[in-house]
Amino acid sequence: MSLPHPTTEQITLANVLVALGDPTRLAIVAQLARDEATPMRCGQFLDLGSKTNISYHVAKLREAGVIYTEVSGTSRLISLRREDLDKLFPGLLDSIIASAAEIALPIALED
Amino acid sequence: MSLPHPTTEQITLANVLVALGDPTRLAIVAQLARDEATPMRCGQFLDLGSKTNISYHVAKLREAGVIYTEVSGTSRLISLRREDLDKLFPGLLDSIIASAAEIALPIALED
Repeated sequence: MSLPHPTTEQITLANVLVALGDPTRLAIVAQLARDEATPMRCGQFLDLGSKTNISYHVAKLREAGVIYTEVSGTSRLISLRREDLDKLFPGLLDSIIASAAEIALPIALED
Repeated sequence: MSLPHPTTEQITLANVLVALGDPTRLAIVAQLARDEATPMRCGQFLDLGSKTNISYHVAKLREAGVIYTEVSGTSRLISLRREDLDKLFPGLLDSIIASAAEIALPIALED
């Protein structure tokens, strides 16, 4: 089974920006960016929201072309579409990840 | 008379991305970026939509902190909040403007 993803040509700047315009989805992308070579499971984002909530946000990111979701047995392996996004919108993902990481940092330090 | 604007501290990455996640608003920002030293009037964007439509989109950009709108008599002078955005989200505005300009270019060449 595989989930639908937009092709590279179907990814639009407006859709990517709307998908990223949410604090939970920015946090998911920032976490994926920490180790891009290793896909993550939905269950690893449960500090950000309920399972239903995370599934919703992950679907929004997939439908906009920001992430790949690969179904592997009962798991879903999530990774950034780094190559596509860098090709289509040079510098965009890096600037957003850098800003999202800076925003998340003070909250983590309060623990 | 002056219109409400968020302070620099009130501007959030999520709000900026949502505001920019619209083709008309991306086109407005791309046009403002062509000559940032010269504020533009709503009337200069009428190739992008009706007066009501442009007023709506300009208000969305102002409320998110992407642009300044200065009331001057019966006109509204619009400019990018370049300094605030570059300070808060380094590289973001430039990457979005570059991508938005590239998207707009092929359409213009078809004329």
